[in-house]
Amino acid sequence: MATDRSPDADASLFDTIVNLSKRRGFAFPSAEIYGGFRSTYDYGPVGVLLLRNVKEAWWRAMVQRRHDVVGLDAAVLSPPAVWEASGHLESFTDPLVDCRACGTRHRADKLEDPDRCPACGARDTFTEARQFNLMFSTQAGPVADAGATAYLRPETAQGMFVDFTQVMTTARKKPPFGIAQVGKTFRNEITPGNFVFRTREFEQMEMEFFVPPAEAQRWHEYWCAERLRWYVDLGMPVDKLRLRPHEPDELSHYSSATSDVEFLFPWGWDELEGIANRGDFDLSAHSKASGEKLDYFDQTTGERYTPHVVEPAAGVTRAAFAFLLAAYDTEEVRGETRVVLRLHPRLAPYKVAVLPLSKKVELTDPARQVFASLSDRFMVDYDETQAIGRRYRRQDELGTPLCVTYDFESVDDGAVTVRDRDTMEQVRVPIDELVTHVTDRLGL
Amino acid sequence: MATDRSPDADASLFDTIVNLSKRRGFAFPSAEIYGGFRSTYDYGPVGVLLLRNVKEAWWRAMVQRRHDVVGLDAAVLSPPAVWEASGHLESFTDPLVDCRACGTRHRADKLEDPDRCPACGARDTFTEARQFNLMFSTQAGPVADAGATAYLRPETAQGMFVDFTQVMTTARKKPPFGIAQVGKTFRNEITPGNFVFRTREFEQMEMEFFVPPAEAQRWHEYWCAERLRWYVDLGMPVDKLRLRPHEPDELSHYSSATSDVEFLFPWGWDELEGIANRGDFDLSAHSKASGEKLDYFDQTTGERYTPHVVEPAAGVTRAAFAFLLAAYDTEEVRGETRVVLRLHPRLAPYKVAVLPLSKKVELTDPARQVFASLSDRFMVDYDETQAIGRRYRRQDELGTPLCVTYDFESVDDGAVTVRDRDTMEQVRVPIDELVTHVTDRLGL
Repeated sequence: MATDRSPDADASLFDTIVNLSKRRGFAFPSAEIYGGFRSTYDYGPVGVLLLRNVKEAWWRAMVQRRHDVVGLDAAVLSPPAVWEASGHLESFTDPLVDCRACGTRHRADKLEDPDRCPACGARDTFTEARQFNLMFSTQAGPVADAGATAYLRPETAQGMFVDFTQVMTTARKKPPFGIAQVGKTFRNEITPGNFVFRTREFEQMEMEFFVPPAEAQRWHEYWCAERLRWYVDLGMPVDKLRLRPHEPDELSHYSSATSDVEFLFPWGWDELEGIANRGDFDLSAHSKASGEKLDYFDQTTGERYTPHVVEPAAGVTRAAFAFLLAAYDTEEVRGETRVVLRLHPRLAPYKVAVLPLSKKVELTDPARQVFASLSDRFMVDYDETQAIGRRYRRQDELGTPLCVTYDFESVDDGAVTVRDRDTMEQVRVPIDELVTHVTDRLGL
Repeated sequence: MATDRSPDADASLFDTIVNLSKRRGFAFPSAEIYGGFRSTYDYGPVGVLLLRNVKEAWWRAMVQRRHDVVGLDAAVLSPPAVWEASGHLESFTDPLVDCRACGTRHRADKLEDPDRCPACGARDTFTEARQFNLMFSTQAGPVADAGATAYLRPETAQGMFVDFTQVMTTARKKPPFGIAQVGKTFRNEITPGNFVFRTREFEQMEMEFFVPPAEAQRWHEYWCAERLRWYVDLGMPVDKLRLRPHEPDELSHYSSATSDVEFLFPWGWDELEGIANRGDFDLSAHSKASGEKLDYFDQTTGERYTPHVVEPAAGVTRAAFAFLLAAYDTEEVRGETRVVLRLHPRLAPYKVAVLPLSKKVELTDPARQVFASLSDRFMVDYDETQAIGRRYRRQDELGTPLCVTYDFESVDDGAVTVRDRDTMEQVRVPIDELVTHVTDRLGL
């Protein structure tokens, strides 16, 4: 996760997106009325839709459209045996130092200046680095003893390994095949930061692809290309993306090769997703620890082997953040600056906004009928506040591809004005053709 | 949550569904290779799809199709201040007793015989009941002191109260309006049980509907009727559902009136969903504790008031379990017993299964093309194992409404056989009309 402070990076864009996110209801710190909770963020009415759309686009590409991948939804709480076998109890750590001057704690490998405290500015005040485990622990059940310890999973992946045989058998799959999961994970980061980029609670989209050992290298290359393409297909500019192989000293304890899909964030190139070749590390470790055989018997060759695993592991929240950054645009329109999120239609929180021209009931009643017919198929916003120009600007800032205005003429001609987010061009469309018009325009 | 052991209840159905769930990949205990983790379940390839469909049907009815409800995705980890104000730190407890003979712990209000231990059978060995808090706690951040305590939310609702003003303002809504959330919650149940009915980790679908105080009673009745109808619309038989108002001594600490939607489970009538009138309990409590005004100023009347809240709160996993129980059916077909899940098409994990008649490549290649065209629109299974009759039976047990068989004639006539799950009738459909045929047949 080396950060490359590129001269192209745009630091002011960071503040712009954080402000927009709060002002428009994408994301804001949790529990703000209590002074905020530094670890986590809440996602507001449009943020939750953006996250849903990112997850849906991933699920569609990685599960729905593939005959060789199935889904899983494993639990967050899990017993120590899983994390002992996986190596996380021993190795899922970051180096931690204390400042002897001010008492703050820092991640040693992320300090800008390894000798100076970023909190108080003192020099040479750090303790020796010690390893801090990033897993959250809790107690399950009414008995508070060691046997009741449970961990909040720091990755969804272990569910796919522990349930490997169960899933392969019930789904009737054989290598090469994948098990995919979207869900919450928790890491007790020493220094959360960069808005929703590094938080203690986040969502992952992970897929474990089980392959014959000899094919692992080829599948690793395949998934690197596929995953890069996924971002491009959803509108991410190619010059903001790159694929970077890890240096040997960066590799996780389970990985023999990893490449990161990186995005040019305002602070430089940083990780969106890692595609790791985990080899047989996990299945072998769980086989050994549990005594259960986590392998595959190929009836056609008579061969029994432990599959190797290629894992594309993406973060939902940081992907959403990157899509917001990439979509942000401004332009001058009649002496005013227009802010517009040029989000891909699949990612846009609302596909359409229905806007009655005035609050008069002869417009709002039929406008709500237009809302009812469109919302059968799409996520639609309905807004009858303020002047129409300001409502258009609001929808531009939410990234809504199309605005439908119901006006006084609509009552007579049974048609509405459809305005395009990107070109601001308006066309008149009969209401009974509206669902088809929107479906075709947005390619949904 | 009083349990009424109805004579209609079918105890053997419970075991049947638990077995089917494990055998077909709906749900099984977490971490089974390590002897299981009693607190939680994992959802396999078809279980995750069923859960997704239940959540999607709820989101569609409660958010997408309503102009007066918006979504939220708040964090699971939350600071003590939230739970102190909400009353959960003091009141979210169950009475706990220890058996002095065998050392097991039990929930005092759920004992069949209040004097006899269900674990060892001893009499009069229980300690005095004491209150046990059901919230899981953990430590956030690298400093292990009291200030770092965080709780795993035991309900999603508090996110909607804490973020009330932020959401109302950014979404431009005013009472009556709702905030909806689907997400994980955690309760350290003393005695989890009944398969996925009571687990320590589960998913909720909650909506807080904020209304002028005088309208609270009317909206409570409205949402009771709406929520009952939701289950019926998704195929739940009316005679397996009832609405039961809580007795005064059953009410939660925040509620002035609650009605449960109950389902006739194999062990009797039990809760699917609660619809509570929470009054102004939560907004007032958080206003007082935080010093922030969580109220609404009505510009048309010049009146400022704290909205009252009506809350339909459903469980994803127990709804899915109830849909499975209600859908299970058997019938005799040519001397064999056919098991079929008569799930509503919106809930069925797969809408279609594509089955090449043989594994020969002249059938599997074009069958995968059929899969590719259908999977652009629907969740589709693809299965080329075993004899066709056994594959049909498997899809019946998964609740797949339509099976598409690609056979040797298909190569010539460009058509496939479509078999109906419920009637087992087969029709021949041209491949280029298949997407339309499926869409119309399933009403999607």
